[in-house]
Amino acid sequence: MEDKYQFAKELVLDAGEFLRQHLEDELVIEEKGHFTDLVTQLDKTVQENLTAKIMERYPTDRILGEESLEHLPLGQGKVWVIDPIDGTTNFIVQKADFAVLVAYFEDGLGQFGLIYDVIEDKLYHGGGQFPVYENDRLLPPFQSKSLKEGLIGLNAGLYAQNYAGLGDMADHTLGTRSIGSAGISFAHVLTGRLLAQASYIYPWDYAAASILGEKLGYTMMTTSGKKPAFYGREYIIFAPTEKINEIKRYLR
Amino acid sequence: MEDKYQFAKELVLDAGEFLRQHLEDELVIEEKGHFTDLVTQLDKTVQENLTAKIMERYPTDRILGEESLEHLPLGQGKVWVIDPIDGTTNFIVQKADFAVLVAYFEDGLGQFGLIYDVIEDKLYHGGGQFPVYENDRLLPPFQSKSLKEGLIGLNAGLYAQNYAGLGDMADHTLGTRSIGSAGISFAHVLTGRLLAQASYIYPWDYAAASILGEKLGYTMMTTSGKKPAFYGREYIIFAPTEKINEIKRYLR
Repeated sequence: MEDKYQFAKELVLDAGEFLRQHLEDELVIEEKGHFTDLVTQLDKTVQENLTAKIMERYPTDRILGEESLEHLPLGQGKVWVIDPIDGTTNFIVQKADFAVLVAYFEDGLGQFGLIYDVIEDKLYHGGGQFPVYENDRLLPPFQSKSLKEGLIGLNAGLYAQNYAGLGDMADHTLGTRSIGSAGISFAHVLTGRLLAQASYIYPWDYAAASILGEKLGYTMMTTSGKKPAFYGREYIIFAPTEKINEIKRYLR
Repeated sequence: MEDKYQFAKELVLDAGEFLRQHLEDELVIEEKGHFTDLVTQLDKTVQENLTAKIMERYPTDRILGEESLEHLPLGQGKVWVIDPIDGTTNFIVQKADFAVLVAYFEDGLGQFGLIYDVIEDKLYHGGGQFPVYENDRLLPPFQSKSLKEGLIGLNAGLYAQNYAGLGDMADHTLGTRSIGSAGISFAHVLTGRLLAQASYIYPWDYAAASILGEKLGYTMMTTSGKKPAFYGREYIIFAPTEKINEIKRYLR
């Protein structure tokens, strides 16, 4: 597993370097259904590059990715879950706050996860048998704090709808933040910047963080308190395990 | 003015360095009215340091600051407007996304503004007779784009209330972002990361950006389309001047 983990880290860092080099490229932007749901040729290129490299090295592994049509069951075999650009709108508009996400599972068990904040050059990596780091800094497990001492990652739409009581929960904290990349927001939960992050997202958005979080005392769950299905889009919250009961008081 | 501008840049960079050195200090946190409106001993210390240095060098100038009780008329004399830590909650909780803000006026006319994103080590500076820079990078004037190609800085509360129609406006863009520092968000408007930023804020929060923005084609106004009073708390929007008419269609 050590070799595969090293391979994955290089894979993700290389993808980030590629994106930094192509930051000023003219973008071909397509809408996926709604005018705010965008994809560029670089999402596709990076997805293809990641897939080709994984397939070359591990030809019998399988891949679940944002820009692929395949939706595999995660429960069996060796499965990579990849998101070439998490936060595509930020990539297009801000040229910042986007990430490359990779997670690796064997028979449904997370082996390692990687979140690479490309512009900040911060790689969050570890999980399974590996300790969790931000670059070379070992991350400690969750440092206890109360809800009213913390910030919640939550976008304005979910707050306004008060979806599943997330708005009520946020009103019992110091407030909400929204940066437009679930992956980076999850990383900010891992470092303690955010107490929790809630989003309406797909498996490739939360797979890496769920593996990283397990090592440090965080739980990835649906807003109804279930284990995520790792299939289709769901309302997901990532929070310290010891805070789950308190959070559930506000959720419905 | 060149001397005063150089002095101000050093002042702000030194304040940022001081905050970086004291990032791990134990904080004495006080609530100012509501449990989410916080101030620390470091806000006060930095305010005092800035004030002392300005008074030593320019004894007859006057100072309007977040942590001072004085509320001066800006229209006359030499006035410094300072915010020692913009984004105090971020400073406490995230140890990131906070800024030191300084603006300087003579007889009501902005001479220069400074926004220092302390952790990113990015100093946005210029205005009046000085070109606007992010560190050593000259910032271009607003590059035209449509509302639906842009992101709006707006917190979840204002979006949910749809205050003054800000939510309606945001729904005609690619979405909202909220990082919890008006100063840094305004800087992100200046660099084109955000198309506009709206907040319910005080003069020390928007003074520096208003001066910087004038040089690059941006307007600071109230949500009712008036010039800010530079007195008390107001609903403020900072946007490209050429977009104001389009934005006003959504505001009420």
